[in-house]
Formats: sequence, structure tokens, C-alpha cells
Amino acid sequence: MQAFWDQGYNATSMADLVDVTDLGPGSIYAAFDSKEGLFLAALDHYAEHSVAKIERALTEADSPLEGIRSFFRKLGREAAGERANRSCLLVNTVLEMARQNQAVQKRVNRHLDTIEALFRHALETAQTNGELSPEKDPKAMATFLMTSIWGLRVLGGTNPAPARTRSVINQLLTLLK
Amino acid sequence: MQAFWDQGYNATSMADLVDVTDLGPGSIYAAFDSKEGLFLAALDHYAEHSVAKIERALTEADSPLEGIRSFFRKLGREAAGERANRSCLLVNTVLEMARQNQAVQKRVNRHLDTIEALFRHALETAQTNGELSPEKDPKAMATFLMTSIWGLRVLGGTNPAPARTRSVINQLLTLLK
Repeated sequence: MQAFWDQGYNATSMADLVDVTDLGPGSIYAAFDSKEGLFLAALDHYAEHSVAKIERALTEADSPLEGIRSFFRKLGREAAGERANRSCLLVNTVLEMARQNQAVQKRVNRHLDTIEALFRHALETAQTNGELSPEKDPKAMATFLMTSIWGLRVLGGTNPAPARTRSVINQLLTLLK
Repeated sequence: MQAFWDQGYNATSMADLVDVTDLGPGSIYAAFDSKEGLFLAALDHYAEHSVAKIERALTEADSPLEGIRSFFRKLGREAAGERANRSCLLVNTVLEMARQNQAVQKRVNRHLDTIEALFRHALETAQTNGELSPEKDPKAMATFLMTSIWGLRVLGGTNPAPARTRSVINQLLTLLK
């Protein structure tokens, strides 16, 4: 996963994978069939971690909207931080190859849909609780929140000042009002 | 520019550049100093085209806000279209390398700032005209619009249904109200 994350799918050779996993090529092929098979497993591992992180942010807060707010404020701080150069493996994959490889596209989209469903569920709960206006559309808002995560990942790559990412987060969060 | 756009900076070799430009390596070095020099020139060329396209969208409309709306509606249609796999050279560059190369980061950020200034100017004009509420913050909104462009570029890579991109655009445009 780290090798694919650092270099992208195309630039990572089987020799690199043998090197970082300490496995022989025969063992890798036996377990994963192909470089693509190993990549899909790495994507699954990455996505599981991301989903767990978002679930935690949403459930540990005092309310669903507070959970969304705290998740995005943290994402904004991360985008202005030193480590933002790593971007997100799912976003990198979409941009590098998803349109060229149907198996990868299906897998990435499945993971992204899982994350979107977490936001949608939180927004629907907020609506049921009266925290979110009944006029709002949780499905459309969840898709918009996903798109904003991706935009923030790119913003992180521009080495933004913290005030700049805070301003983006504040604009985004006005939608939740 | 096309070679860098198709393959990214790192995967494009001097041999590829010799091949696509029909120039000898000596001529390329004489004119651009290095692969990086040629890449910066390609970025400039790409950005000039992008800036001109956005300026056109903003000035051809009946009002500044109508210009922003029509630009984003078109971007949404493009994100759902067949050619969305190409993404945007500036976005690709940010994610591939901007944090690792200061010269590239400065150049990409300069181009992105030019585009952001176009949106900010349109929003300020809208405010002067009374089309946009005086309570809105044109600077913060312009940064948010930029972040949304990047998010839409990633959304395009997921092969979204047209209704899905329309929904994102509709959410975004509620901010202009």
C-alpha cells in the first residue's frame, strides 16, 4: 500500500513490490494473481482505515452535524499541515487510472460510496433529530461533501496557509445551516 | 504539454519529449534548460488557455453571477462526459509533485491565484451591482469556488452519472444566493 501510495500504480513495478513486501514474485502471484490484484487489496486496506476514521469522527461527536463539522475542521488543518503532500490514495487512483481500468474504478467507487453513505446517514439522522432543516437534501449534500473532501486534498497540495483552508471549511459548513 | 498531461511529469522521459516535439535533445536543452524548464513552459501554455476560457465564460454572461453559474454548469457537464478522464494538468501537477518541487509549486500557485482572482473580481462586481449580498465574503467564496473546481475534477474521474454532477453544482450554487 505504501509503495502504491508513494509512486502511483503505473510507476510501481513488480520488482518494487518484491522489495517492499519481502515476498518472492511467485508468492505475490499466488496470493494476489497480478499487480492489479495486489493493488486492489491495498486499496481495500486503505479504504477500511479511511472508513473507520470517518465513522469515529461522526459517532464520537455530540451530534451528527457536530461530527461532520469536526471531521471537516480536522481535514482543513491536515490540508495546511506538513504531511498534506501525501494526498489520498483513493483520490490519486481516481486521477491516475480509474477511467482506464474498470476493475479499479468499480472498487474505488464502492469505497467512495461507503464513505458517502456515512455522511448521508449522519445528515438524515440530523434531519430526524431536527438538527438539520427538513428542506435540505441529505443525498445531494453528502455527494457535495465528498466532492469537497477531494477539493481539499488538492488544496493541501498547494501548500496553503492555515487561514486559507479555514476559510474554505467555513464556507462549506455554511451549507449545513 | 500533451505528453506531460497524458503521463505526468515523472513518467515523461527526455526521449518521449524528443519524440513528440521532433526536436533534438540539444535544441530542447538550449531553449528550456531542462525537462523542468520545458514542463514549466507547458504549464504556462496550459494555464493561459484555462484563464482565457474562464475569462470568456465570466464576461460573456449577462451578469457576473450568471457567468459563474454558467461556468460551473458547463464544468459539471464536462465532469460527466467521456473526456473527463484527462482531468486538469494543474490539478494533476499539484497532486503529483507540487509539494516536492518549489519551482513547480510557485508556478502552479501563481496560475491558480490568477484564476481565483477572476472569480473574486466577478463576485466583487456582483456585490457592487447589488447582485450579491453585501454580507458575503468574495475572497473566501472565490477560494471555495477554486476548491470546488478541483473536487469536480476528481468527481469526473469516478465516471459519475450526469444527475450526480448536476446535484453537486446545484449545492454549490446555493452559496451564491
